[in-house]
Amino acid sequence: MINVGVLGATGYAGIETVRLLAAHPEVNIKKLISRSFAGQKISDVYQNLKGICDITCEELDIDDVAESCDLVFTALPHGASKSVIPELFEKGLKIIDLSGDFRYNDPEVYEKWYGEKHSAPELLKKSVYGLCELHREEIKRFRLIGNPGCYTTCSILALAPIVASGKADSRSIIIDAKSGVTGAGRSAALPNLFCEVNESLKAYKVAAHRHTSEIEQELSILAGEDIQLSFTPHLVPMQRGIFATCYINLTQKLTAEEAVGLYRKFYSGSEFVRIYDAGTLPEIKHVSGSNYAAVGIVIDERLNRAVIVSCIDNLIKGAAGQAVQNMNLICGLDEGLGLRAAGMYL
Amino acid sequence: MINVGVLGATGYAGIETVRLLAAHPEVNIKKLISRSFAGQKISDVYQNLKGICDITCEELDIDDVAESCDLVFTALPHGASKSVIPELFEKGLKIIDLSGDFRYNDPEVYEKWYGEKHSAPELLKKSVYGLCELHREEIKRFRLIGNPGCYTTCSILALAPIVASGKADSRSIIIDAKSGVTGAGRSAALPNLFCEVNESLKAYKVAAHRHTSEIEQELSILAGEDIQLSFTPHLVPMQRGIFATCYINLTQKLTAEEAVGLYRKFYSGSEFVRIYDAGTLPEIKHVSGSNYAAVGIVIDERLNRAVIVSCIDNLIKGAAGQAVQNMNLICGLDEGLGLRAAGMYL
Amino acid sequence: MINVGVLGATGYAGIETVRLLAAHPEVNIKKLISRSFAGQKISDVYQNLKGICDITCEELDIDDVAESCDLVFTALPHGASKSVIPELFEKGLKIIDLSGDFRYNDPEVYEKWYGEKHSAPELLKKSVYGLCELHREEIKRFRLIGNPGCYTTCSILALAPIVASGKADSRSIIIDAKSGVTGAGRSAALPNLFCEVNESLKAYKVAAHRHTSEIEQELSILAGEDIQLSFTPHLVPMQRGIFATCYINLTQKLTAEEAVGLYRKFYSGSEFVRIYDAGTLPEIKHVSGSNYAAVGIVIDERLNRAVIVSCIDNLIKGAAGQAVQNMNLICGLDEGLGLRAAGMYL
Amino acid sequence: MINVGVLGATGYAGIETVRLLAAHPEVNIKKLISRSFAGQKISDVYQNLKGICDITCEELDIDDVAESCDLVFTALPHGASKSVIPELFEKGLKIIDLSGDFRYNDPEVYEKWYGEKHSAPELLKKSVYGLCELHREEIKRFRLIGNPGCYTTCSILALAPIVASGKADSRSIIIDAKSGVTGAGRSAALPNLFCEVNESLKAYKVAAHRHTSEIEQELSILAGEDIQLSFTPHLVPMQRGIFATCYINLTQKLTAEEAVGLYRKFYSGSEFVRIYDAGTLPEIKHVSGSNYAAVGIVIDERLNRAVIVSCIDNLIKGAAGQAVQNMNLICGLDEGLGLRAAGMYL
Repeated sequence: MINVGVLGATGYAGIETVRLLAAHPEVNIKKLISRSFAGQKISDVYQNLKGICDITCEELDIDDVAESCDLVFTALPHGASKSVIPELFEKGLKIIDLSGDFRYNDPEVYEKWYGEKHSAPELLKKSVYGLCELHREEIKRFRLIGNPGCYTTCSILALAPIVASGKADSRSIIIDAKSGVTGAGRSAALPNLFCEVNESLKAYKVAAHRHTSEIEQELSILAGEDIQLSFTPHLVPMQRGIFATCYINLTQKLTAEEAVGLYRKFYSGSEFVRIYDAGTLPEIKHVSGSNYAAVGIVIDERLNRAVIVSCIDNLIKGAAGQAVQNMNLICGLDEGLGLRAAGMYL
Repeated sequence: MINVGVLGATGYAGIETVRLLAAHPEVNIKKLISRSFAGQKISDVYQNLKGICDITCEELDIDDVAESCDLVFTALPHGASKSVIPELFEKGLKIIDLSGDFRYNDPEVYEKWYGEKHSAPELLKKSVYGLCELHREEIKRFRLIGNPGCYTTCSILALAPIVASGKADSRSIIIDAKSGVTGAGRSAALPNLFCEVNESLKAYKVAAHRHTSEIEQELSILAGEDIQLSFTPHLVPMQRGIFATCYINLTQKLTAEEAVGLYRKFYSGSEFVRIYDAGTLPEIKHVSGSNYAAVGIVIDERLNRAVIVSCIDNLIKGAAGQAVQNMNLICGLDEGLGLRAAGMYL
Repeated sequence: MINVGVLGATGYAGIETVRLLAAHPEVNIKKLISRSFAGQKISDVYQNLKGICDITCEELDIDDVAESCDLVFTALPHGASKSVIPELFEKGLKIIDLSGDFRYNDPEVYEKWYGEKHSAPELLKKSVYGLCELHREEIKRFRLIGNPGCYTTCSILALAPIVASGKADSRSIIIDAKSGVTGAGRSAALPNLFCEVNESLKAYKVAAHRHTSEIEQELSILAGEDIQLSFTPHLVPMQRGIFATCYINLTQKLTAEEAVGLYRKFYSGSEFVRIYDAGTLPEIKHVSGSNYAAVGIVIDERLNRAVIVSCIDNLIKGAAGQAVQNMNLICGLDEGLGLRAAGMYL
Repeated sequence: MINVGVLGATGYAGIETVRLLAAHPEVNIKKLISRSFAGQKISDVYQNLKGICDITCEELDIDDVAESCDLVFTALPHGASKSVIPELFEKGLKIIDLSGDFRYNDPEVYEKWYGEKHSAPELLKKSVYGLCELHREEIKRFRLIGNPGCYTTCSILALAPIVASGKADSRSIIIDAKSGVTGAGRSAALPNLFCEVNESLKAYKVAAHRHTSEIEQELSILAGEDIQLSFTPHLVPMQRGIFATCYINLTQKLTAEEAVGLYRKFYSGSEFVRIYDAGTLPEIKHVSGSNYAAVGIVIDERLNRAVIVSCIDNLIKGAAGQAVQNMNLICGLDEGLGLRAAGMYL
């Protein structure tokens, strides 16, 4: 059994991690850390957990966490993780960080998109980008994982095979992404109110969203050249789910069937990625509530352009589920343990 | 391992049963029967099941079902179950019927509320009302279970302890119930369209809904006298969940704490019923996605009236989950096996 | 033309008042007061008003308001109105107050339900309860109107005719009400977040909601005796609309047709109340976006009980529309001027 | 006063036309034609219209329509309009057709995208594409108007100024569009059910949607060259609204402010198009319930690409409102008469 702690347990990514861990057969939850709800039972904050996980939330005490846990998930607001992770790392803990702080190979990229210096650039070298489908073998050798963002996971999974294939123009990429509202987190801010979100739709941070840099980093590695791309996030009135519609110009003829074949080969060892048959496309309800990613491909022969759509549950494959998948990998467990629940559909 | 079949697998109650069974550790799904989608893989109809359950749906062949299954769930439209269940029963199968056909002790009650003669009144005696929390021991001795309706489960669980206690006036009961839209099933009818349901709310079948008779039957047994009550169903723009607000006049002084104590005692052996502390009330998101029922009690001292609210996931505790709970009971398994997933909250 | 101001213009009730006033043929909007958005154009806060109403919001300056306006709508948080209204009244302004402060005949009732002393009890005598359908003639003689609450309007309109008729037991009233989320206002609080409200439903302030006292006050007048009743509010995942399901025991035989006749007679001069034919019931989408109230009646002959359902748009007939209706009355205009838009349905 | 009829009055575009016409000061509604609901009052089918428009729906009788009406709106399913419009035209009626049949200059384009021969190609020459902002003067001279599609209106308004400016590469256009569910019409089909749409999102008809051809036709005229572009429609769980995110590569330097200036100049005479200040973007709730289109522009300097977002209410500016705007133009009325209601925001 692995003894784990969750820092930032009462945010949306945090609580989803708790929910998954509570059902994981090889995990003991030892510590739940929450500044806002310290002293309260997690099951009084999220009553779906009554009788399932009734641990009391605590303020962070690093020594205490280090003593009782083998591994921690850090689901803290940006900045907060940066300040505690070096200490936790020092203590020898395995760390899966759900913030953006340890997702970069190059601190300069971080600094450009986050607008501040990275406070632990030396740790960046000791961390790995935790997109399991791309870095499975490396992940197993690390103990600090930069768990990818939700938009990022959805977008990279959609584009990795075609970019790696060399059959498309990697300067022509446009990603138009749509997210459910859990992606905005649990902060009590005006734009997150039901009546401001419901029956509406908006784009935000157009040409300026930080996840752009993660996607560019990973696709550049696959392409073997520097990629810059358009990424546009939208907020949609639903709770869970991210849907990415990706456009890329082809440089060679490619049928839809060939594209499907290419994608299936690329993901042949990856049980959580489902490539749809040519002529069919995924919808968010096919994956919502699960750790699966679903990808469908249309070849627009008229324009010689591929349109690839992909979807995930942003809280699971885009956050907590992927974090657990990373835990399984670095702890030598079956990669999919505790993650094979079907989506809900309804 | 139990070999099971699901008849009517592609309706909403049917597919939820399939989803739960696919994750049940003691079940082999052998047959999925669907008239509308015969010949198609269940995972092409509900793509959340891709790679999880890829069985091909078939037309009903009773001999074939009887040969390959020990137990069947019948989630057929009203009337359809009545005609196949006698034959299935004859073949020696265990049967959990999700329709209304085998929920009654008295065929005349059925005939009054359904407006037609019961076609197998002799089987009614061989069946039991499958509300596990009330009939646990009887259920274990039967092999034909009339699985309760969703409104019914929610309402009876809310009222059973107070009615059984004799501390309230059982002629004063009013149940005001609110259901999500999955309760209306998957028929492609105008009133079920997104644009007809969304951003609206309506009452329907006021003073005339069939579930009234199930609730009256069960509460009358507990009260030891004939109960008649008001039951008003409403349709609410959400997918899952039933919420019942129940009113009953007290005949004795009772504090909220005493009421909570009384309820907890009544349900002491029933892990799936959560009684909330006095001063707190459940919400649908506390149970949605789970087999749990949550009940909260307010005592209105000004009016000497109890207001009891309860909620369940209509597809799980109100249909598929309860059916699996019944299967566990009649097959001698741990009652909660495969049913202990936490609700989703988000 | 009437020169008007709106105090608290950027809350949900305030902005709906602005939207209606902007389209009213006899109104000039002179002042929009908002503490939070002072200095900003109203159309930068609510962009639906761009080019339609581009007035800049201001901090409150009572002299300035008194100088430029004949009439003000006060849509301030509870307490805030109480402190400014005496001064505004002093200056000779007509005032339509959307808070709870001036809805009571008896300051003791206010003090009991609001838990504090009323700060201007002498003004209560100079104000009238602005439910136009009940107090039309009085309203015309007053210049301080306590505009009714949303739950209240919906509930009283449903019950007034039957209570006034003497054909029912006024001690048996139960009102089970369901509200859209705009009813909770625009405060950036956790329980109002999209992800906390969506796909869920809850009851709140059971047996303790302040609107109970308004309903009891008005129905007691009609009954000629002191009425106490159960009122249970629920929050439903939709933006607009209130739906009240009301139960009352009959003391005389009454058919549905007779009840419809009785209701139509009661509301014969009230164009904004629609009584449905026996056998049909209203839904929120029949009135959403309009100033109409819709009422349907079921007589449960089995139990000798009437079940009356009514619905309104909480922001219009339950707040801003009713306020404009009151303005029309006290200014001697056609009562329905600017209020006859059809509901949106879609 | 203009005497008008609506053919196909009970579909979603039809009923929205009726709702707008009922409030139009220069219109008498004389005939409502509906095959499915002939014999029923329109206000029994859409109860929001009770007391506002209680006309009884009829089967189509062309002579009768021609006798009582000056102008008809045809909101019939595709194909149905084609067969009645030649006759109506023959009788001398003014016709505003909401189907796709009369939106093309070239019958071959129609035939390519609709997969069948056009049945009245000679009438195409006598019709005009009714996008008022582009063809205002021509529209005034015609009496058969091909009222544009909803996706089309939103997309063309977003791209027309930049394409016409010659400052961008018209071969690089990608339009990623998101629609509310009213866009799918009122047919009782499985994919339109609440539980299939809610909490999900999908793309459909990728690289194959008919509206692509309308957009290409109109932008090609503006560009002075043949344009082919990517258009991807998505279905989003909300009722009203279309949101188009449009990408186009710039061929010249252009700041956001310059772009805003260029757009405002282009639409200087068009009151229903709102161009947002640089740095701000529209959301669907800014226009929902109104005839306004809102457009915002981001210049991605890193990639030298413009990202233009636009939104409309698909039922109003994308269908019924635009139809009324066309009626106003061809009848010599003020173009915006009856169309200046603010959006609802809430």
